[in-house]
Amino acid sequence: MGLAAPGASRVYLDYNATAPLRPEARAAMIAAMDVAGNPSSVHAEGRAAKSMIEKARAQVAAAFGADGAEIVFTSGATEAAALACAGRGLRGAAIEHDAVAAWVSADLPVNAQGAVTVAEPSQSALQLANSETGILQDLPDGIAVSDMTQAFGKIPLAFNWSGAKMALISAHKLGGPKGIGALVFPRGTDIAAQIKGGGQEMGRRSGTESTIAIVGFGAAAEAAARDLADGVWDRVAKLRNILEKAIETVSQETILVGKEAGRLPNTTCMITPGWKGETQVMQMDLAGFAISAGSACSSGKVKASRVLGAMGFDEGAAASAIRVSLGPETREEDVLRFVETWQAKLERHRARAA
Amino acid sequence: MGLAAPGASRVYLDYNATAPLRPEARAAMIAAMDVAGNPSSVHAEGRAAKSMIEKARAQVAAAFGADGAEIVFTSGATEAAALACAGRGLRGAAIEHDAVAAWVSADLPVNAQGAVTVAEPSQSALQLANSETGILQDLPDGIAVSDMTQAFGKIPLAFNWSGAKMALISAHKLGGPKGIGALVFPRGTDIAAQIKGGGQEMGRRSGTESTIAIVGFGAAAEAAARDLADGVWDRVAKLRNILEKAIETVSQETILVGKEAGRLPNTTCMITPGWKGETQVMQMDLAGFAISAGSACSSGKVKASRVLGAMGFDEGAAASAIRVSLGPETREEDVLRFVETWQAKLERHRARAA
Repeated sequence: MGLAAPGASRVYLDYNATAPLRPEARAAMIAAMDVAGNPSSVHAEGRAAKSMIEKARAQVAAAFGADGAEIVFTSGATEAAALACAGRGLRGAAIEHDAVAAWVSADLPVNAQGAVTVAEPSQSALQLANSETGILQDLPDGIAVSDMTQAFGKIPLAFNWSGAKMALISAHKLGGPKGIGALVFPRGTDIAAQIKGGGQEMGRRSGTESTIAIVGFGAAAEAAARDLADGVWDRVAKLRNILEKAIETVSQETILVGKEAGRLPNTTCMITPGWKGETQVMQMDLAGFAISAGSACSSGKVKASRVLGAMGFDEGAAASAIRVSLGPETREEDVLRFVETWQAKLERHRARAA
Repeated sequence: MGLAAPGASRVYLDYNATAPLRPEARAAMIAAMDVAGNPSSVHAEGRAAKSMIEKARAQVAAAFGADGAEIVFTSGATEAAALACAGRGLRGAAIEHDAVAAWVSADLPVNAQGAVTVAEPSQSALQLANSETGILQDLPDGIAVSDMTQAFGKIPLAFNWSGAKMALISAHKLGGPKGIGALVFPRGTDIAAQIKGGGQEMGRRSGTESTIAIVGFGAAAEAAARDLADGVWDRVAKLRNILEKAIETVSQETILVGKEAGRLPNTTCMITPGWKGETQVMQMDLAGFAISAGSACSSGKVKASRVLGAMGFDEGAAASAIRVSLGPETREEDVLRFVETWQAKLERHRARAA
């Protein structure tokens, strides 16, 4: 099939890596570009910038079910993870995202369905949804830190009812800009700043606020919450089920990871033994489809999935996985074209391997 | 004069707090909004995002005279300061910005002209330009860390010739978006990441890159370098001199801080004894002018300037300072209207005090 012809329409099926910017976020960000002030300045221009930030904070709080909680804006969930976890000696599981795994002893047991057993919630971190498989965890009450980055915006969710003492969220997974996120916790929680200076964000996180990005986060969160309420993700779940049924028909050897577990509505993690995920990603990319092998977050590195290893898959299987993640803009024809193209590649792969 | 009438044109004279977004940055950011990919993804969408970031890195390197050096994008100069300074036991002076002062023992001597004496450059941090007074330092060769945030874009400057081992810079001081900056250092420098995870920015700073903001930083840096080469800041310096001459005529008791020292071309720090800076800022704001008292970066707090204290001014004088900072868009009539209005306020103040 070769390189997609210039201008040929691409199909983006990598929403868990990052979602396209929502039009609401785009419009709000462009409007924010006209506000010149520094949010810390006391003059009218500064107050206008500050008020945009506080509006965005309220939008995020409402969308995240976190009214009354503190929302500290950070440069993303990765910085929020450092702020929440560094130096606390928390335990976690090997399925946590690198941003959390960097700070925890990854020794909590994970079963074959991807479920984690937590012994001491107040000393542990546990994600709500896995980025590679979409598998959801039952959060134990009082869990110290929960990475809710992948779940926020895709499933109904309220921080205030989650039982988590702190949560990490990110804008770009729900259609906001990349490079902005937040740490969320109940008022009165003791958080020591790691980035010190001017004392912004109530002293929890210094540095002039990323005003345009924060405004985009707020608008995207509000739009994402509306989508959820409107049943958009039920439609996405139907498309994902169409995708998985079609894959099962085309390739009985392909394993749909976590199919029996509670999952995000948009994520399919599929292992086709003997066919490297990396190869699949490149072939499908050339054919016009953006998907991924494992998590996107390790610049350019494509390696066997640590997440699948923790669930008991051997290295060969873990290296043969791809992740297809759908979003609100995915159409049924995108999914059907994906399966058709993937099948053609699979047949070529089988012919070569034979 | 009361509240500015709705729609009345405001005069923004607070460029050192933050500069309005440059049209080049705005256009580049809007274009970047259409690129959906995660820069760490290997597919076409991801590579497109990655290539925008690398283009911006090259633009910043060229504008900052840092070809061949490493530019690690951070959420701003404040995060860059933490990355450069935390845990290193550096010395500094009390005139450093809060973001640096938070990490250094502020005991280096400052003279009445604002000049800092550095005993051990390799163990010290020294700013290039002060945000409140605009006073420039002669950087000793081998200075460990230099905050070049206020200087970058306003004066000719090349990191590679600065003698500094690391430099902090920020986009929003030169017309890029708020919330993005960089730590700059020669290749091969050992920098331990503080925000860990996916390994972005060559492992120095994890987290999905703030792509839109980075693109804006690159475009703004390029435009700022062009302005400098075109003599725009010479024009700004002339306006600043017009401003200061007019102030001297209007109020002989007003002290123009650092007037005899080398300064940024755009900054006037003026002390009018007995008239609180905070009051001046509020009165001028109501009259349509955005200026500041001291640094903008301490959310809402207006206190006596630590910088002026370090230069030997007493608390009363330090609390009676305002900073007027001009930019490329400042017009002569803005400056003249500013002085006229300020004079009227001063006369009212004197009449009340009499």
